[in-house]
Formats: sequence, structure tokens, C-alpha cells
Amino acid sequence: MVVIYSGRRVTLDVSRVVLPNGHEMNVEKVVFPHAVAALPIYESDKVVLLRQYRPVIGNYILEVPAGVVEEGEKPEEALVRELNEEVGAEVDYFEKLFEGFTSPGYSTEYLTIYYANVKKLSEPRPEPHEVINRVIISLRDAFDMVLNGNIADMKSALAITLYMLKKGVKA
Amino acid sequence: MVVIYSGRRVTLDVSRVVLPNGHEMNVEKVVFPHAVAALPIYESDKVVLLRQYRPVIGNYILEVPAGVVEEGEKPEEALVRELNEEVGAEVDYFEKLFEGFTSPGYSTEYLTIYYANVKKLSEPRPEPHEVINRVIISLRDAFDMVLNGNIADMKSALAITLYMLKKGVKA
Repeated sequence: MVVIYSGRRVTLDVSRVVLPNGHEMNVEKVVFPHAVAALPIYESDKVVLLRQYRPVIGNYILEVPAGVVEEGEKPEEALVRELNEEVGAEVDYFEKLFEGFTSPGYSTEYLTIYYANVKKLSEPRPEPHEVINRVIISLRDAFDMVLNGNIADMKSALAITLYMLKKGVKA
Repeated sequence: MVVIYSGRRVTLDVSRVVLPNGHEMNVEKVVFPHAVAALPIYESDKVVLLRQYRPVIGNYILEVPAGVVEEGEKPEEALVRELNEEVGAEVDYFEKLFEGFTSPGYSTEYLTIYYANVKKLSEPRPEPHEVINRVIISLRDAFDMVLNGNIADMKSALAITLYMLKKGVKA
């Protein structure tokens, strides 16, 4: 294993690997921490999204709140913290919808997705590097935006579709 | 922009960026090509998945067929090629379900997800580095596996849930 880079969030290593079929190859591996995301449900039929500036893509994008699980933190604690910081949301119930890899071809990122019922909204307290606006829309509108490309973030799309299927909301 | 690494698939650059709020920060950016994925529908109520060895996570994982769009290729051409190579599938119809970023916090990867109706299955012709077995299961079982963690790949979970909502299949 050769570590090419190790930074704030991302580590890159490139290794010579022998596959189960005997084939040998260089594998480029991005090591990324465990992350959480949540679909905040507000007044039973609305969702709270974030219009967030993402420097990596050089643009704003609509997303559910998300963040990495910090050292010593449990995923559920990271979830409650992110909802509080990014959305200003106090939640009274949350439930896991999914967990898995975002891009297992090159990244170790493992994401747990929840929905969370919001009890109370107050002012968000984003970090200086988080350029975020809160957007409250109906679940129905959110689903339309998944279909028409206005929600172009995969974890957010999956949170919305899984919540609809779980609650029996028709498309 | 400082390119730290540029390899077969992954490029990593780290840049000093000024955000719209004036805050300045180092941004770690993984540059990854446009990719496609498809949920192959077989005999109307079954799906064709791949049990694929992923060296990055050191394990096998169940996924829909996927791959990057090669230079000079259109996404639809990449889709037909991947379905043919990885699944041995000839398709007679496909439709886009979603397009967006897999992990906009650190990666430029942009993925287009389709479903594709399989007309005929023959022998797959995977590349030497692809360790793949074809798994044919009902759509219903696939959805249960999204919920119980046996399908732990985000694009695959999204393809399955969006297809169900689009076709009015109940959870």
C-alpha cells in the first residue's frame, strides 16, 4: 500500500492487488470516513433540504443534511449534531432507511441514511466553510425534483424514494 | 490547483478556494469520469444483479451493472456496452431514472441511472479485472435486500426504489 495523499477528509492510496481470479492490478482507493445523512420530515408532509455550495463541483446543489461521523462519535450522534448545526432542527424520532457504499469502485465511503421527524426548527449554526440555505418543500415536490433533475444528489434521492416506499406514498 | 495524483480512473487535486461567503479553504477534489448504471429488468418482474469483487472494499458486493463513459462515447452507448459485457444482456428498451452526483462533498463523479428491459441473456464477457457473477432475483426480493442491508450499494438501491415508484410497485 502506498499512501499518495492524506488530508483533512480524503486519503488516497494506490496498491498492487491480486484479485480472487488471480488477475493482478493497481487499485486506486479513496479512503473516506463513515458518513450520515438524514431526510428531515417537517409537519408530516414537508421535507427540509439544504441549498449548499459545493466547491468540488463549483456550484450550489440541493441536498439532505449530511456529514461525517467524527472520531469517538456514534452515527446517531453525528446525525443529531448535523441536523442541529446545518438545519437548526430538534428531532423527536429518527429511523434508519439504508446503509451502504456510495461508490465502491474507488471509495471506501460508507453512508447511513435516516429519516428524522423534526419537532422544532430554530436558527442553523453552520460552520464557516458551510454555505447553506434551508429550503422547506413538500415531499411531493421533492420527489418531482428527483425526477426532473433539480435534486441531483444521489443520497438525497435515495432518502426521498425510500421514505415514500416505507410510508406508502404513491409516486 | 495542485494535481496530487492522476491515474487510471482517479485524479486528486487540492486547491485553495474562496467560498461565496468569503471563507477561504483547502478543497480536496477527487476527479472521476461520468458513469452510468442500469437496473436490468428480466421477464418483467425479475432483476439481474452482479455479485462483484470490489478490491477497494476488499469484499464482494451486490450491484447493478455500471461503468464509466469512455472517451468519445455517449452515456447510452456506455450503458449498452456495459450491459452486454458485464451481464450478457441485449436490451430492447431503456429509460433514464436519475442523474446526479454520488458524493458532491469530495468527488466530481456524476452518474446517470437507467432501467433497461432485457430481451435476451447470453454469456457475459467481463474484463480480466472484473470478478463478477450474475444473480437473477425478483424485484420484490431485491427491495427486501435494500431494506435488510444485503444490497449495500447506493446506486443500486436508488435504481430499485425509483423503478418501483415509477411502475407503481408497492413496498
